[in-house]
Amino acid sequence: MGMVGGGLDAFIGAVHRRAAGFDNEIELVCGVFSSSPEKSKATGLALYLPEDRVYSSYEEMIEREKALPEGERMDFLSIVTPNHMHFPPAKMALENGFHVMCDKPMTINLAEAKELAQLVEALGLVFGLTHNYTGYPMVKEARDMVRNGKLGKIRKVVVEYPQGWLSKKEEDTNYKQAIWRTDPSKSGAAGCMGDIGTHAENLAEYVTGLKISELCADLTTFVPGRLLDDDGNVLLRFEGGAKGVLHASQIANGEENSLKIYVWGELGGLEWHQMEPNTLKYKTQEGQRIIRPNVGDLSASAKAHWRMPAGHPEGFFEAFANLYRNFAYAVKAHMEGKPADPIYDFPKAEDGVRGLAFIDTVIASNQSETKWTKFIQ
Amino acid sequence: MGMVGGGLDAFIGAVHRRAAGFDNEIELVCGVFSSSPEKSKATGLALYLPEDRVYSSYEEMIEREKALPEGERMDFLSIVTPNHMHFPPAKMALENGFHVMCDKPMTINLAEAKELAQLVEALGLVFGLTHNYTGYPMVKEARDMVRNGKLGKIRKVVVEYPQGWLSKKEEDTNYKQAIWRTDPSKSGAAGCMGDIGTHAENLAEYVTGLKISELCADLTTFVPGRLLDDDGNVLLRFEGGAKGVLHASQIANGEENSLKIYVWGELGGLEWHQMEPNTLKYKTQEGQRIIRPNVGDLSASAKAHWRMPAGHPEGFFEAFANLYRNFAYAVKAHMEGKPADPIYDFPKAEDGVRGLAFIDTVIASNQSETKWTKFIQ
Amino acid sequence: MGMVGGGLDAFIGAVHRRAAGFDNEIELVCGVFSSSPEKSKATGLALYLPEDRVYSSYEEMIEREKALPEGERMDFLSIVTPNHMHFPPAKMALENGFHVMCDKPMTINLAEAKELAQLVEALGLVFGLTHNYTGYPMVKEARDMVRNGKLGKIRKVVVEYPQGWLSKKEEDTNYKQAIWRTDPSKSGAAGCMGDIGTHAENLAEYVTGLKISELCADLTTFVPGRLLDDDGNVLLRFEGGAKGVLHASQIANGEENSLKIYVWGELGGLEWHQMEPNTLKYKTQEGQRIIRPNVGDLSASAKAHWRMPAGHPEGFFEAFANLYRNFAYAVKAHMEGKPADPIYDFPKAEDGVRGLAFIDTVIASNQSETKWTKFIQ
Amino acid sequence: MGMVGGGLDAFIGAVHRRAAGFDNEIELVCGVFSSSPEKSKATGLALYLPEDRVYSSYEEMIEREKALPEGERMDFLSIVTPNHMHFPPAKMALENGFHVMCDKPMTINLAEAKELAQLVEALGLVFGLTHNYTGYPMVKEARDMVRNGKLGKIRKVVVEYPQGWLSKKEEDTNYKQAIWRTDPSKSGAAGCMGDIGTHAENLAEYVTGLKISELCADLTTFVPGRLLDDDGNVLLRFEGGAKGVLHASQIANGEENSLKIYVWGELGGLEWHQMEPNTLKYKTQEGQRIIRPNVGDLSASAKAHWRMPAGHPEGFFEAFANLYRNFAYAVKAHMEGKPADPIYDFPKAEDGVRGLAFIDTVIASNQSETKWTKFIQ
Repeated sequence: MGMVGGGLDAFIGAVHRRAAGFDNEIELVCGVFSSSPEKSKATGLALYLPEDRVYSSYEEMIEREKALPEGERMDFLSIVTPNHMHFPPAKMALENGFHVMCDKPMTINLAEAKELAQLVEALGLVFGLTHNYTGYPMVKEARDMVRNGKLGKIRKVVVEYPQGWLSKKEEDTNYKQAIWRTDPSKSGAAGCMGDIGTHAENLAEYVTGLKISELCADLTTFVPGRLLDDDGNVLLRFEGGAKGVLHASQIANGEENSLKIYVWGELGGLEWHQMEPNTLKYKTQEGQRIIRPNVGDLSASAKAHWRMPAGHPEGFFEAFANLYRNFAYAVKAHMEGKPADPIYDFPKAEDGVRGLAFIDTVIASNQSETKWTKFIQ
Repeated sequence: MGMVGGGLDAFIGAVHRRAAGFDNEIELVCGVFSSSPEKSKATGLALYLPEDRVYSSYEEMIEREKALPEGERMDFLSIVTPNHMHFPPAKMALENGFHVMCDKPMTINLAEAKELAQLVEALGLVFGLTHNYTGYPMVKEARDMVRNGKLGKIRKVVVEYPQGWLSKKEEDTNYKQAIWRTDPSKSGAAGCMGDIGTHAENLAEYVTGLKISELCADLTTFVPGRLLDDDGNVLLRFEGGAKGVLHASQIANGEENSLKIYVWGELGGLEWHQMEPNTLKYKTQEGQRIIRPNVGDLSASAKAHWRMPAGHPEGFFEAFANLYRNFAYAVKAHMEGKPADPIYDFPKAEDGVRGLAFIDTVIASNQSETKWTKFIQ
Repeated sequence: MGMVGGGLDAFIGAVHRRAAGFDNEIELVCGVFSSSPEKSKATGLALYLPEDRVYSSYEEMIEREKALPEGERMDFLSIVTPNHMHFPPAKMALENGFHVMCDKPMTINLAEAKELAQLVEALGLVFGLTHNYTGYPMVKEARDMVRNGKLGKIRKVVVEYPQGWLSKKEEDTNYKQAIWRTDPSKSGAAGCMGDIGTHAENLAEYVTGLKISELCADLTTFVPGRLLDDDGNVLLRFEGGAKGVLHASQIANGEENSLKIYVWGELGGLEWHQMEPNTLKYKTQEGQRIIRPNVGDLSASAKAHWRMPAGHPEGFFEAFANLYRNFAYAVKAHMEGKPADPIYDFPKAEDGVRGLAFIDTVIASNQSETKWTKFIQ
Repeated sequence: MGMVGGGLDAFIGAVHRRAAGFDNEIELVCGVFSSSPEKSKATGLALYLPEDRVYSSYEEMIEREKALPEGERMDFLSIVTPNHMHFPPAKMALENGFHVMCDKPMTINLAEAKELAQLVEALGLVFGLTHNYTGYPMVKEARDMVRNGKLGKIRKVVVEYPQGWLSKKEEDTNYKQAIWRTDPSKSGAAGCMGDIGTHAENLAEYVTGLKISELCADLTTFVPGRLLDDDGNVLLRFEGGAKGVLHASQIANGEENSLKIYVWGELGGLEWHQMEPNTLKYKTQEGQRIIRPNVGDLSASAKAHWRMPAGHPEGFFEAFANLYRNFAYAVKAHMEGKPADPIYDFPKAEDGVRGLAFIDTVIASNQSETKWTKFIQ
């Protein structure tokens, strides 16, 4: 793969590289790691890349890689730049025949997202989006339990995502992550809702298989002077009648990365917490079962996303690696002209479109005095 | 004390009696335990009451007890009937000079609640309401930490109360608790929101010291044929700018009695869970502290509501007993013409009024197409 | 009941009184609450006892109560004095026909314990011992699961009881509990092992139904100048081949009252923790089930020792109350000439003898250079 | 690096390869992955190794790699064969100037371990041993808290390691892991105690900085027909007076991989659990603190072994990768003639010797009728 973004000082680039390399299916062969050519070179050097495959711009990279013989050039492009720089390289890569793995959110606005999705559709290429929390095996198990009717018809979904790291005005310090995430020109129209609210939305729809049909949002910017929302509370209604709550925050003081989901149906309920990702609770009025990777009878999908014996904790990197591995399998199937195996699923362009539509909808709802706002299509 | 309601087959009567007797401050001396005189007699007998102090109606009890010499007659009336039967005995007791301890919600509608509150105010009597969850020592500690500024200005409150016991149409079986709680004529205008939503509302306001100023509610009756809501999701706004979420359910399949509260302020956050009531989590960006009864430095109030050495779990009964003991102290202070000690606090008539106003507000909001509904005064 | 010991400043007396009164089966009618007649009177007054039933010595109490007409005199004696003062009043009470409920350990040495047990046997009276941790409903459930073969043949038992409250030399302060518990003349030959090691031993034998056959102990006094052990580690062997570990400590800094038991058999394992007493974990290689009071299908015994709906935590007092209630039922059955219902079980004289034998065995083992010491009979 | 063992069907080889590659410091360049040349070739192919660097025997590999020019040949050998095949390749590699990373236990008996340790010492090469549980950041933090006196003088250590996977006679099925681990000729003199007891021993000594001085062991083979112990309980005494308990099991039905350690000192206590590795509990009589990676003020060492923002769980692979990365740093320092940075520590030959000595000591103790057996040097 080739990479855009992810210089040595960027946190997420290293995550993507570790995730990509984890299962020995993907090799980094080229990249443009920074808008500064010096930094890009330095990163390439540190990553033991040959000098001639560290480029100065994504345009250069795509052109020159395309000129290389098949088998030698990169097979796909991984995009790990700030949000506003997802669309241009993604578009150019697709148009030049490269598959794309893109950090979320897919783009900085819904129009771009739709354009990319149409391109993917039209060209038949593989497009992956790193809504990484759906890569956990217990999330796969949860989705499969819902699918298989273990919960009955779903009635209620609560998904919550409190973080505390922006409790103060970190963007006034030298904290790079804070700076671009609170800057509308780089992050998009939403702050907290775009950064983590979309993860919550994606998780809720993934696990339940239900689409949000309308919502009612109350967004807040608690830290004075901040330009984007740092907190949001949302009532949800799903197609088919399920109800729900989504709340996310970057000012939930003392919280780390506490994404949780609860799903209740006519027959039972599920509970999952990202910070203890290897435990899934299944409750009915008859009792509670603790479901754990590699213990007892699990779905084929849960098994396919776990590497270790029971009790050897896998975490964030392994879930992320599941996305990359599955994406690599899909690329390989594409090369071989075969259909991708659905057990190795990963978020795709349509998830990205939905994420941007979610952002637009919560912003519209937040500005509206009417209770319900239809989910924007 | 004297008791109205609480026959042998009524669950909550025994809770009140155990709670009242727990600290050896209160003695049951008379009662009318059922609308059926036979059942009332049988209960009185089982409770070793003298036959002449088991009455056939609350009217008879209040009149005859009043006729007894002071020191011999009951000092206060405990009301544990279904909701629609709170107001009449409470009113008559107050008008005859008896203090009243009343199960929640205070009455079946807001008008009655206000009338009682005015009566209490006018007569200067002691009125207690069993919003029992505020009796836990770790809830006292939480409130005191907020009061003392440990969390800074409060920004966000999430209070959730999922139960699963009404996931099916239990009111069609012989399940007495289910029958009256889903019957509007006995329970009031709200089901889930009245029964447990008000506990959540009371807890949120108690811990934070903030009043809800407006809200946006989405109530649902999931079980076909049920007459009242069995689930509700509510966005909250508090005076002073804090935001929040309240959700409660009786159809959250597999949940027992899972009341939880999260409060986040500018300096830190708190988390408390009723099902593990002796643990309070205090989190800041610097780390997390586990606060436990009788360990380390606690507020005077937390200490005053715990009886055991550390690690000897107290639970629901003990929290309930705290309310009764504190109420008894207030009655004693009233008898002695002294002010009540504020450390021994308990929910009062104004909390009851607020609970009924909350019910009316969520129902109004649920029926409204406008996003925000002002909290009804 | 009558009570020996338990003055106002004694912690355990109030526990016993609350436990005894909890289920409305037992009334305190007389007592001698202190070796100081003034303190005894003051306690009796505070407990609203008639003056003439507050006595100056247990001898006086037993004699004068015996002289009262049946139905008026106490039915049994509750003994809550320090350990060295259990035997004399217990013996005299039994010899005068009173049933006895005795705090643990039963006596200060094995000879006394055996003498009492023989007396109980000979007289056919009811004798209860407050190994209160077996009163928890989830402990009953655990025992029944073992009995019913859910775990298969038991292979391994680990029981641990760390406390930290004697990490410093508290007996040099004014801390009454610490003073007598570290004084061999009042506490007996063992410190930590007598005070809490016996609870652990009793719990292990109760849950598994197995008797310890031999053991290997390493006791330590960590706090300089202390006269009794404050820590002990013990290897266990049970009749029938199960193995185990018991460790207990009063110097496990930061621990509250952290009694835990793990039992593993050929088919599954159990885990229970006193500080979260309403959760029992049942694990097999196929998965884990969380067992909770009043949820799903429980043993009749677990149901008979729980009062509340699911999710309303009961704790230490309620477990203690279960012992008193069951004892009261046995006394009532005795009065009526009926056999006691085995579902309402409680620790008896033979458990007390075993506790003292355990103490003697660990002390002998600790002094021995041989690995295994047979459990003293 | 080069690798011995770790064919495609061997679980631990893939763990080592992922761990080695995780931080982009180490590249697999050659290997002999199986005693069957075909299997070895197949594995090499799957790993994208050049055919000429997949060897048929470790002897061949060491010789031919040594013949390659520096910079091209492997820098060190990773040994992931069953226990009995650790010593021969390790010895030959060292004698030919290659550094060695070896799976634990180091060898199949103490004599071999000592011989290797002397060789390492004599040759000044880098030798690492994968006692991987000490690679977790919270274990580093625990060790540093002890070192820095946060617990005061250590009094008591409890380390427990229950697993349930050998509850039945799995070695009679086709389960490869079970077969060699229960075979004395491949596993060594101990079963459970060698496989996981040594991890527990290593962890206890690592965290406390104390050496076990004598012990008393009770080993059992619960599964009929099994040749090695599958369970063991051990009393520990440490140099300096601390006491402890170590118990480990492979027949603890329903347990996954539940390594836990408790350490109590004069000032406080620590608790850590491998299955929730990112939480360290620090308790004193004043309260409990939850210590988490990247939250608040941690030791430099804990920080150096964590890659993610707070709340993004790292697990087994990342801890394992920490060992490899630290080993790689030591190899690099060796190449550059510099001392290794002590912050990047990893288990070494002396830990391996201690592990084998532990095995010999528990076996000797198990066979002895004397209580205490000195730790064999």
